[in-house]
Amino acid sequence: MVIQQKIKQWLEENKQRGVRILQQLVQEGSTRGNESSAQAVIIEKCRKLGLTLDIWEIGKEALIKHPAFSSDRKDFSGNPNVVATLKGTGGGRSLILNGHIDVVPEGDRNDWEHDPFSGRIEDGKLYGRGSTDMKGGTVSLLLAMEAIISLDIKLKGDVIFQSVIEEESGGAGTLAAVLRGYKADGAIIPEPTNMKIFPKQQGSMWFRITVKGRSAHGGTRYEGVNAIEKAMIVMSKLQDLEKARNLKITDPLYSKIPIPIPINIGKINSGEWPSSVPDIAVIEGRMGVAPDEDMKSAERELEFCMKKVAEKDDWLKKNPPQVEWFGGRWIPGNLEENHPLMSVLSESYEAVKGKQPVVEASPWGTDGGILSRIGDTPVVVFGPGVTEAAHDVNEYISIQEVFHAAEIIALAIMEWCGTGSDRHN
Amino acid sequence: MVIQQKIKQWLEENKQRGVRILQQLVQEGSTRGNESSAQAVIIEKCRKLGLTLDIWEIGKEALIKHPAFSSDRKDFSGNPNVVATLKGTGGGRSLILNGHIDVVPEGDRNDWEHDPFSGRIEDGKLYGRGSTDMKGGTVSLLLAMEAIISLDIKLKGDVIFQSVIEEESGGAGTLAAVLRGYKADGAIIPEPTNMKIFPKQQGSMWFRITVKGRSAHGGTRYEGVNAIEKAMIVMSKLQDLEKARNLKITDPLYSKIPIPIPINIGKINSGEWPSSVPDIAVIEGRMGVAPDEDMKSAERELEFCMKKVAEKDDWLKKNPPQVEWFGGRWIPGNLEENHPLMSVLSESYEAVKGKQPVVEASPWGTDGGILSRIGDTPVVVFGPGVTEAAHDVNEYISIQEVFHAAEIIALAIMEWCGTGSDRHN
Repeated sequence: MVIQQKIKQWLEENKQRGVRILQQLVQEGSTRGNESSAQAVIIEKCRKLGLTLDIWEIGKEALIKHPAFSSDRKDFSGNPNVVATLKGTGGGRSLILNGHIDVVPEGDRNDWEHDPFSGRIEDGKLYGRGSTDMKGGTVSLLLAMEAIISLDIKLKGDVIFQSVIEEESGGAGTLAAVLRGYKADGAIIPEPTNMKIFPKQQGSMWFRITVKGRSAHGGTRYEGVNAIEKAMIVMSKLQDLEKARNLKITDPLYSKIPIPIPINIGKINSGEWPSSVPDIAVIEGRMGVAPDEDMKSAERELEFCMKKVAEKDDWLKKNPPQVEWFGGRWIPGNLEENHPLMSVLSESYEAVKGKQPVVEASPWGTDGGILSRIGDTPVVVFGPGVTEAAHDVNEYISIQEVFHAAEIIALAIMEWCGTGSDRHN
Repeated sequence: MVIQQKIKQWLEENKQRGVRILQQLVQEGSTRGNESSAQAVIIEKCRKLGLTLDIWEIGKEALIKHPAFSSDRKDFSGNPNVVATLKGTGGGRSLILNGHIDVVPEGDRNDWEHDPFSGRIEDGKLYGRGSTDMKGGTVSLLLAMEAIISLDIKLKGDVIFQSVIEEESGGAGTLAAVLRGYKADGAIIPEPTNMKIFPKQQGSMWFRITVKGRSAHGGTRYEGVNAIEKAMIVMSKLQDLEKARNLKITDPLYSKIPIPIPINIGKINSGEWPSSVPDIAVIEGRMGVAPDEDMKSAERELEFCMKKVAEKDDWLKKNPPQVEWFGGRWIPGNLEENHPLMSVLSESYEAVKGKQPVVEASPWGTDGGILSRIGDTPVVVFGPGVTEAAHDVNEYISIQEVFHAAEIIALAIMEWCGTGSDRHN
C-alpha cells in the first residue's frame, strides 16, 4: 500500500477520536484570558504523541518592547503558549505548523441556536465558537502529525507544532514564539481558507477614534453638541475611505474578493443617559492592510482622512477626532506564488482532492505576517472551514474537511521535511 | 416695614446659611439610587422648620400598576420621598412646592474643571452636578418657607413641600406623592427656567431602538451586515423626523426655542470586538412631546417612521428596527395663560424684579405633567438656573438668582395661600 493510502486509511480508522478532540477543544471556550483549559487538551495530546513540549507564559520584556508587539492585554499569566516539536532525523527542511487557540467572544447568545460552546454535531458539521476559527485547523495539524507518528514514518526535518494565544488580538503569542527562537524553512497556518491556498494575507490593525461633543439636557439639545451625530459624520467618512482604498487594489489574487481590504467599524459606545446630549463617542474598528502595503503608511492614510473630515465641520475643526492605534495588529503576508512551499502544498492538495487548488489572497490578517516578516519563515495559509462562519453565530466546521486538510497537510509535511526512507532505503 | 421688605431683609441676613445648605445638597451627589444622603439634608432642614414630615419608600403595587408609571428601576428601598407640610390656618388656597432631589450622572469627569460634586463657589456661582437641576430651586423653596415661618407670618392655605426622587427617570416619585393623596389648588416647580415662567411644559419619553445586523469576521465584513451601519440609517431618519415634527409647532410661546420638541439620541452601544461585524446596535433617546400632544400618538409617529425606514432597505425590511418605550416618561403640561396662579406668580415677579416676567413654554418635561394631568393640580414651572447648565459639565447656579427666586416664591405663597392678617387684623 502506498503511503498516501496508509494515511487516508489511518485517518478513516481514527475519525471518532479526531472528532472527539475537536469537540473537547470547542467545549473549552478559550476566549481571551481563558485559554488555559483548551491548551491543557493540546498539551495532553502532544504528550501522548511523544513530542518535545515547550510550555511558557509569554510577556517578557523582550516581547513587550518589540516594535511588532501590539496588545492591550495586561496579564498573560496562567494561559501559556505551547510548542511541541517532532524532531527530524536530520538533513530535511523544517516546518512550523501554527494554530491559535484563542477564540473571539460569542456575541449575543440569543442568536445562537444552541450553546455557543456545545461542540454539537449535526449533519457532518461540528458547531461552536472556535470550531472554524481555528480549532478545526489545529485538529487537522494534530491528526496529520499523529498519522505520521502512528505509521512510524521518520521525517528528516523538524516539525514544530505551535498552539499560540492572542492571534485574535494582534499576534503576541506567535511573536513570543518567534522571539523564543522558533523559526523554520516554512510554515503552514490552517486558518479557515475553505481549502483555498493563500500565499498572501491581508494585514490589519485596530483603531480607536474618539469624537468629542458637548453635553446638555436633551430637551435643549441645541445648547450642546451631540457626539453621536459627529461620530456619524466620522463613520460615513470611514466608509468613503474604505471605497477609495479598495479601488487601488489590482492584484488578480483579490479579483473575487468584494472588499479586499475592508475598514470594519466593530464597536461604538456613546452616552450614559437617554435625555442627555452625549459628550463623547468612541468608535473602534479594524483597518485592512494590503499584502504589499506598509503598516505605517496605512495609519497615516486614516489619520489624514480624519484631518480632512475635521476641516469641513466647525465643531470638529475645533475638536478634531482623536485617532489611536491599539490592541490587534497583524502584519500582512506576501509569499511569492512560485515558492517551493506553494508547489508542495498544491501537489499534496491535488493528490488528495484530484483537482487543482484555488489560490487566492486572504481577506484577513493572520499570524503569518509575524512569522514571515519577523521570523523569516515563509508562510502559506491553508485550512478547513469557511471564513463566513468565523466570528459569526452558529459557527461550525465540516468534519470531512478537517480530515481532508489533515491528509493534505500530512502529505505536505512528508514532502517538505523529507522521509527517512530517502536515507535508509 | 412692609412684608416684602421684611422677606428681602431676612433673605439678606440669612444668605450664608442658605448657600451652605445648597452646598451640602450638591455635595451629597444624589444620582439615581443614591438619593438618601441628600434627602437626609432635606429632612433635617424640614424638621428644624417644624414642618409635618412624611417620609416613605415608594414602589407599592398601586404605583407600579398605574398607567402613568414608567420606570426601569427595580429597587426604590433606602431612598425615600419626602413631603413636609406647613399647615395653614384654613380658608386659603393650598400650594404644592415640588423639587426633585435626583441628579443625572456627571458624565466624563475629565471634562469638569473641578470635582463634579464640589459645591465650589466662585464669582457668585455655586458649581456642581445638580446645582441648577434642581437643588438651587429646592433651596429657593426652603428659603421662602423659612422666611415666612421665621417672620411669623400665618398662612391660610397649606403649603406642601415635596422633595421627590426619580424626576430624571420619568417621575415615579411625584406620581407616588400624587397617589399618596397629595393634591393642591396650585403648584410651583422651580426647575431651571432662568427665571422665566413656563405655563406649558414639553413632555417627553424615552425610547430604545434595537437594530439587528449579522456578525462576521471584520476581514470579510461583506459576509455580515453591520448593525452600526444600519443604526446610522435609523438615526439619520430620526433626525428627519425631528425636523418634520418641529415644523408643526406654531405656539408663539415656542417662538424663541430653536427646537421646541427635540428628539435626542442620548446613547448608542454596539459591538464587542473591533474586528468583528457587530450583530446588534441599541440606540436610546428622548422624544419631546408638545404640550397639547397625546403621548400615545407621539409614540405611533416614531414607530411609523421606523416602519418607513425599514421599507427602503432590504435588510431592515426583513429585520425591522424594534422600538420600545421604557424608563423616563414625562407627561406634558398645559396650563392656560390666564390662570390665577399665573397672575399671582407674575405679580410677585414684578414686585421683586421691577419688570414683567418672560412667559415661555418649557423646552423640557418636568413632573408638572403628572401633577396636573394625574394630580389635577394646576402647575407653573419657574425657577433659578439656566437650562444650558443642566446636565452639562461644570453645571453651576447663580446664588443671587436662588435668593431672588426665594423672594418671589415667598410673595407668591403669601398671595396664593392668603395670610393670617386677612383674618386676624
